[in-house]
Amino acid sequence: MDIDSIIKQVTAELCGKLDIPATGSQDLEYSPASLAKYIDHTILKADASLSDVTKVCDEAKKFNFASVCVNSGYIKFVADYLQGSGATPCCVVGFPLGAMIPEAKADETARSVADGAKEIDMVVNVGAIKSDDWKLVLKDIEGVVNAAKGRAIVKVIIEACLLTDEEKVKACAVSKLAGAHFVKTSTGFSTGGATVEDVKLMRETVGPDIGVKASGGVRTYEDAVAMIKAGATRLGTSNGSSIVAGPSTDGNGVSNCVNCGACRNVCPTGRTAIIKQY
Amino acid sequence: MDIDSIIKQVTAELCGKLDIPATGSQDLEYSPASLAKYIDHTILKADASLSDVTKVCDEAKKFNFASVCVNSGYIKFVADYLQGSGATPCCVVGFPLGAMIPEAKADETARSVADGAKEIDMVVNVGAIKSDDWKLVLKDIEGVVNAAKGRAIVKVIIEACLLTDEEKVKACAVSKLAGAHFVKTSTGFSTGGATVEDVKLMRETVGPDIGVKASGGVRTYEDAVAMIKAGATRLGTSNGSSIVAGPSTDGNGVSNCVNCGACRNVCPTGRTAIIKQY
Repeated sequence: MDIDSIIKQVTAELCGKLDIPATGSQDLEYSPASLAKYIDHTILKADASLSDVTKVCDEAKKFNFASVCVNSGYIKFVADYLQGSGATPCCVVGFPLGAMIPEAKADETARSVADGAKEIDMVVNVGAIKSDDWKLVLKDIEGVVNAAKGRAIVKVIIEACLLTDEEKVKACAVSKLAGAHFVKTSTGFSTGGATVEDVKLMRETVGPDIGVKASGGVRTYEDAVAMIKAGATRLGTSNGSSIVAGPSTDGNGVSNCVNCGACRNVCPTGRTAIIKQY
Repeated sequence: MDIDSIIKQVTAELCGKLDIPATGSQDLEYSPASLAKYIDHTILKADASLSDVTKVCDEAKKFNFASVCVNSGYIKFVADYLQGSGATPCCVVGFPLGAMIPEAKADETARSVADGAKEIDMVVNVGAIKSDDWKLVLKDIEGVVNAAKGRAIVKVIIEACLLTDEEKVKACAVSKLAGAHFVKTSTGFSTGGATVEDVKLMRETVGPDIGVKASGGVRTYEDAVAMIKAGATRLGTSNGSSIVAGPSTDGNGVSNCVNCGACRNVCPTGRTAIIKQY
């Protein structure tokens, strides 16, 4: 064992005994705090209460996340609550099946925007894709884009886990054609979430002009970095606070403080003890 | 072993060898064919294609099911396709999370009814229940009932698996108060489906005046009978053809033909061989 390894091991052991986080010596390509701006902090489960949604909004403010993403029924509350913060109110539409009447999807969009949504995450009409009815796929997206025009950006969830690679490429191309501002991998309610391969394919398809959002199963700092390297410019997750807390360990099983900047006396993620240095 | 048992056993053995379905001697409280009128034949998955939906419609016509239940994007097709058959066009609204803006839920209802829906299965606002905001729960249901008034009946999906017993009772009471025609157990997209206990509780709550629909996990003749005995007057399932094929076996492991009346030369369920009797 070389001297570096010995020092690392002894430091970890001592810090562990003293309940002090070892700062480690990792060279991080992305500082954890810098990931906050990628994160759509998300709560979409059917039984989310107003109190659950409020907590998510508070976290978004605290960590400087890009947005808070909720079901449309909560968007008015979220838009009001986030006023004056840097976080954008975002809601889903036609979620999570994407199988509603196109005009109803557009109507839900218009009402969401009227309620204060600045970002709309719509689900593509997967059934129309499976029926090879691309005119309907386009019309469905255009309806939402037009309903939001000039007032909110639109992300199109293609639900990649249900599509063939050819369908993924077509769905992304049609989304771009319809004027969407992002393509997004997944609802998080189907058979699978974001994969590095899908994000790469989607980025290759849409080019650099519009965004790619990876969502579903993005839970750790490592997941987030992998998605960004693959081409993602936004991340949908309910684990934003863990992501900005940085790598789970310093490689020696010791939890790191990653200087997320959100702490006062207690680590907001609960992952490290904060010991003031005198 | 008494003579009846011996005859039963020998018959089963011989019929098995000859590949002839033993007709059995079961005294069925519900004839399998009589269950057809309870069944909302259902296809709600995001990736259902037009061809999948067509197949479900054809099955509903063949077996005389009560309705075909689809996402609202397919209701116009279904209403047209079922014209002149006994099956009713039914669609879901605010599905499966129930968390959209109430006015958007009402709008989806109005559009669905205009497209030909005669039955609307809406999802209750579960988040409002969890926030103890019963005024909002009521308003949300009333919006749908009013949008459908005089043109379609409304079933309220309470998503029982997410509720406490007290919340189930309240949700059913509020649904009845709002003028709904049915309460329904489940979407089939959450953590659990219909249970006999929930159906009993829901029936006790709403009394005999309105319907109770059991849905989610209702797959066999035995499931169906258990739900009906518990108080269900409608069953949501994608396994209608198996249900009307009757009990899986005659108790001796021999598949029964249950005279569903839908066969010609081949059992439509694939469960028995049809041997013409000369």
